[in-house]
Amino acid sequence: MAKEAKKLDELFHDTLKDIYYAEKKILSALPKMAKAAQSDELRAAFEKHHGETEEQISRLEQVFEAIEEKPQGKKCAAIEGILEEGQEIIKEYKGSPALDAGMLAAAQAVEHYEISRYGTLKAWAEEMGLDEAAQLLGETLEEEEATDEALTELAEAAVNIAAEEKEAA
Amino acid sequence: MAKEAKKLDELFHDTLKDIYYAEKKILSALPKMAKAAQSDELRAAFEKHHGETEEQISRLEQVFEAIEEKPQGKKCAAIEGILEEGQEIIKEYKGSPALDAGMLAAAQAVEHYEISRYGTLKAWAEEMGLDEAAQLLGETLEEEEATDEALTELAEAAVNIAAEEKEAA
Repeated sequence: MAKEAKKLDELFHDTLKDIYYAEKKILSALPKMAKAAQSDELRAAFEKHHGETEEQISRLEQVFEAIEEKPQGKKCAAIEGILEEGQEIIKEYKGSPALDAGMLAAAQAVEHYEISRYGTLKAWAEEMGLDEAAQLLGETLEEEEATDEALTELAEAAVNIAAEEKEAA
Repeated sequence: MAKEAKKLDELFHDTLKDIYYAEKKILSALPKMAKAAQSDELRAAFEKHHGETEEQISRLEQVFEAIEEKPQGKKCAAIEGILEEGQEIIKEYKGSPALDAGMLAAAQAVEHYEISRYGTLKAWAEEMGLDEAAQLLGETLEEEEATDEALTELAEAAVNIAAEEKEAA
């Protein structure tokens, strides 16, 4: 069983490096997304999530510490691809009234990637008895789920406003 | 408002092409994942999802028909990146007892990408009054959510087995 534990350790560590890299990429993408947002609400949501992301990076650094490893990123092809799609939306829908809808969709794709990663990492931390790590990862998981819900509400609100404008027209 | 409707139409169509491309990529990745799986349960889950994916592709073709467009894919950088990470896991963890755990995590990242895309597409279809499309996209969304839950259960079962083996050792 020692070999198995070792291997799950490695997988945990690799995945931690993956999400650490991803969070740093997200942190640098968020100001661009906030700048491109048309509505004040969406801009505020991106700005709020920027602060949360900084906190999440700091939590990941505590998880690295808990497993006695140096915080280190590992190129994450998934987040590169997901963020690339967001940048395409900004480019292709600049000036279009559908820009915010596209950016909301891109942001929810990012959130869902994070939710899957933190869910996995938390489960593995629990399996390995890394209580502090599981606690930290669980906190971020809840935050990401709340962000995804907030984005859904923003998308629904935008839909309702558009529908009302259509009726009024 | 005509311009807004048009633009959301375009965004819907672009995103439909994105997930159509993604589903086809997933369809070709699943047999490789099934072949690499160590446990019979995980292999069976991938095989089952292969059949579902075929059905989901056919539903997407009906959505294209509903908006009078030809089914067509558009390179989706996100799914390329997510699947690339899954392939890395297979390569790096071949022969390791943590391989299935890694593949489960990779599969859940795929599911979450799909959940975010289908959730978005369904909401936009509703906004545009595309009832048939919304219905079809909603069916697939529910299937993807059920698949994600099934994968979580498999992951938890694997964790429990590992824990029991550890106690017995």
